Amino acid sequence: MPITGDQTLLKQINRMAIVRRVRQQSGLSRADIAKETGLTKSTVSLLAQELIDEGWLVEHAIQITGALGRRPTPLAIDGGRLAMVGAELGVDRIHVVGLSLSGEIVFKTEQDLQGSGPTEVLGQLARLLIDGVAQVRASGRSVFGVGVGLPGAVDEDAGVLKVAPNLGWRNVDVARPLRAAFDAAGLDALPICMQNEADVAALGEYEFGSAPVPDPLVYLSLGIGVGAGIVVNDRLFVGAAGFAGEVGHSILQIAGARCSCGREGCAEAYIGLRAIARQSASPGDPPRDLDALAAGVAQGELLAVRAAQQAGHYLGVLMQNLWTAFDPGRFVLGGPTCELGAPLLDAAKETIDAYALAAGLPAPEVRVSRYGRRAVAAGAAAMVLHKLLRPV
Amino acid sequence: MPITGDQTLLKQINRMAIVRRVRQQSGLSRADIAKETGLTKSTVSLLAQELIDEGWLVEHAIQITGALGRRPTPLAIDGGRLAMVGAELGVDRIHVVGLSLSGEIVFKTEQDLQGSGPTEVLGQLARLLIDGVAQVRASGRSVFGVGVGLPGAVDEDAGVLKVAPNLGWRNVDVARPLRAAFDAAGLDALPICMQNEADVAALGEYEFGSAPVPDPLVYLSLGIGVGAGIVVNDRLFVGAAGFAGEVGHSILQIAGARCSCGREGCAEAYIGLRAIARQSASPGDPPRDLDALAAGVAQGELLAVRAAQQAGHYLGVLMQNLWTAFDPGRFVLGGPTCELGAPLLDAAKETIDAYALAAGLPAPEVRVSRYGRRAVAAGAAAMVLHKLLRPV
Ligand SMILES: [Zn+2]
Ligand SMILES: [Zn+2]
Repeated sequence: MPITGDQTLLKQINRMAIVRRVRQQSGLSRADIAKETGLTKSTVSLLAQELIDEGWLVEHAIQITGALGRRPTPLAIDGGRLAMVGAELGVDRIHVVGLSLSGEIVFKTEQDLQGSGPTEVLGQLARLLIDGVAQVRASGRSVFGVGVGLPGAVDEDAGVLKVAPNLGWRNVDVARPLRAAFDAAGLDALPICMQNEADVAALGEYEFGSAPVPDPLVYLSLGIGVGAGIVVNDRLFVGAAGFAGEVGHSILQIAGARCSCGREGCAEAYIGLRAIARQSASPGDPPRDLDALAAGVAQGELLAVRAAQQAGHYLGVLMQNLWTAFDPGRFVLGGPTCELGAPLLDAAKETIDAYALAAGLPAPEVRVSRYGRRAVAAGAAAMVLHKLLRPV
Repeated sequence: MPITGDQTLLKQINRMAIVRRVRQQSGLSRADIAKETGLTKSTVSLLAQELIDEGWLVEHAIQITGALGRRPTPLAIDGGRLAMVGAELGVDRIHVVGLSLSGEIVFKTEQDLQGSGPTEVLGQLARLLIDGVAQVRASGRSVFGVGVGLPGAVDEDAGVLKVAPNLGWRNVDVARPLRAAFDAAGLDALPICMQNEADVAALGEYEFGSAPVPDPLVYLSLGIGVGAGIVVNDRLFVGAAGFAGEVGHSILQIAGARCSCGREGCAEAYIGLRAIARQSASPGDPPRDLDALAAGVAQGELLAVRAAQQAGHYLGVLMQNLWTAFDPGRFVLGGPTCELGAPLLDAAKETIDAYALAAGLPAPEVRVSRYGRRAVAAGAAAMVLHKLLRPV
């Protein structure tokens, strides 16, 4: 893109460059920032003052040192005055969180879905979000945006949930009813964005995961479905038609078990929660739900532990394959299946470690999501910041 | 990156924006370009004249239309005056090509490796490249850069071939001896760049493949080794440590055949040329080389055809897995194994088509490289243009 004279955009690019630099390294002075960004000192001073006034930055106390006298004032991200609100619209539950600029959850709530049709469910989502915004504001923070994570393929620009197999929805306009409810509540200035649940969770880990956060980063969403959110070159990677990261349907066993997608041998048919529940059921017994399964694993029940370990082994193979494809600096595991704990997670780690050892390579880093069962809601909130920091 | 006042860079960004726009759509006028890029008409006129003078652009004949009178002069890429030179340093052979701005091969030569050590081989490579530049110049074109594709992991900035298992090289400085030879030949102004062979072949298909070229694009390099060159968001995707695309070591068969890398069940152990040769050998016979294998397949020899089909089936599974990971708009297949022809390529296509059908999705596009056995050399030349078009 050639550079033209759009002053508003230019200003926002420069403002966000300052915020990004201070996020990377707290305590920089205006002069440091000017040197490192190539902006003039007077531009940095002007924009930094704006950012302080708006709640993005805070000045640390001025340090007096004996020999040098008054040192330049260090700048830091202000974790106390601004917030984003994020929601997960899950298959059976809605989570809403408020997230500070430093990634702390400052508000949280959850509720089972009331109804199953888009009208009821999106109405409930709007109410919970609007209430969340009100509560975060009541605690003294300004909210500058709202993000939503959705359980399926999303057309981000149109705000449409294209396919959500586990909700049974197709081409549902999510943006319009949310926007209408927000406008009716007097929140017409508040931007709303949305994306697939694994994608937003990946952004949550990319923006607020344990530093230094590597690029690429692969987040694996483990539940009934299995999918990946992938950050590449500082952006979400969605592929040509938005299907990148649908790695639950990569083949782990040629001509293997039948998958929900119609193919045979997909990862989801071995790692998906339904497959684990089936594997762990005694002959004749029906498969258990996640809580019962997790309890079985926690109590050391042989069938449940074995099923979790076996799924973990397949998960390790999937990670090996994604390692060769993306060479991520970090894998982050999240989603309900992680609640099966060590038998699954250790087996996954051991499997990829064994592959790395066989090839004489250091194994890739594997972590569990910082936000636990709120990974999607926190990620949706983080997406708001992520987008704002990247005006172009 | 905040935008600063670097006028030289700014000018090059704007020049290359014009070239890119005309590459996308031949026949645009200066006014069209000004409108679409946001540059002023006078800037476009000034830069377009420079680009015409230098050999990048050409003015089509002025069109006189009855009603409208003289129409603005259409601009097009000049395929006739500039060229890039590219080379493949292969495991047993060097290819060198000259490539026009419109992607035509205007010069080609090849030679078996003379010797096996870096000193001899890089000396030979330098001689062939310098001779290639001289011959392209003698045919009346200016050469503005040289690219090299290497059979292993490359540190692009350092110009070092880090590991080339099939050459038996480790940490070989390729840039320095090439640079020294070019300087000694009076070619000190000619930039030289280098990258892994699958990566440069991917760039060749990305810059000059059948239009419209999609993004992402996955190029699969099929030979003794199996690897992918991947273009994402208009750039080569290399991963955190430069190992992205090492998909020959993704697992197709858990606890399967032993691979050269030490792991079991890797794609290369099923799709690699050595695996195909082993599969196609009659009991007691030694594996054949590529030419003999290709001849066997061409003559319909049962064992050879079956081995090619089986490898093609595994290749289809690998593509299915990369489809879910990257959602590429196109797969391009290249490398020596493609010379086995229809039995292998059809089996691969049928396999991924069957997966797509089972899932009710349109199958991804699969093509064979435009440049055949010169895919790497032509890609190395295309890389020179690719980089120049993207100054930041
Ligand atoms: Zn599937
Ligand atoms: Zn291998």
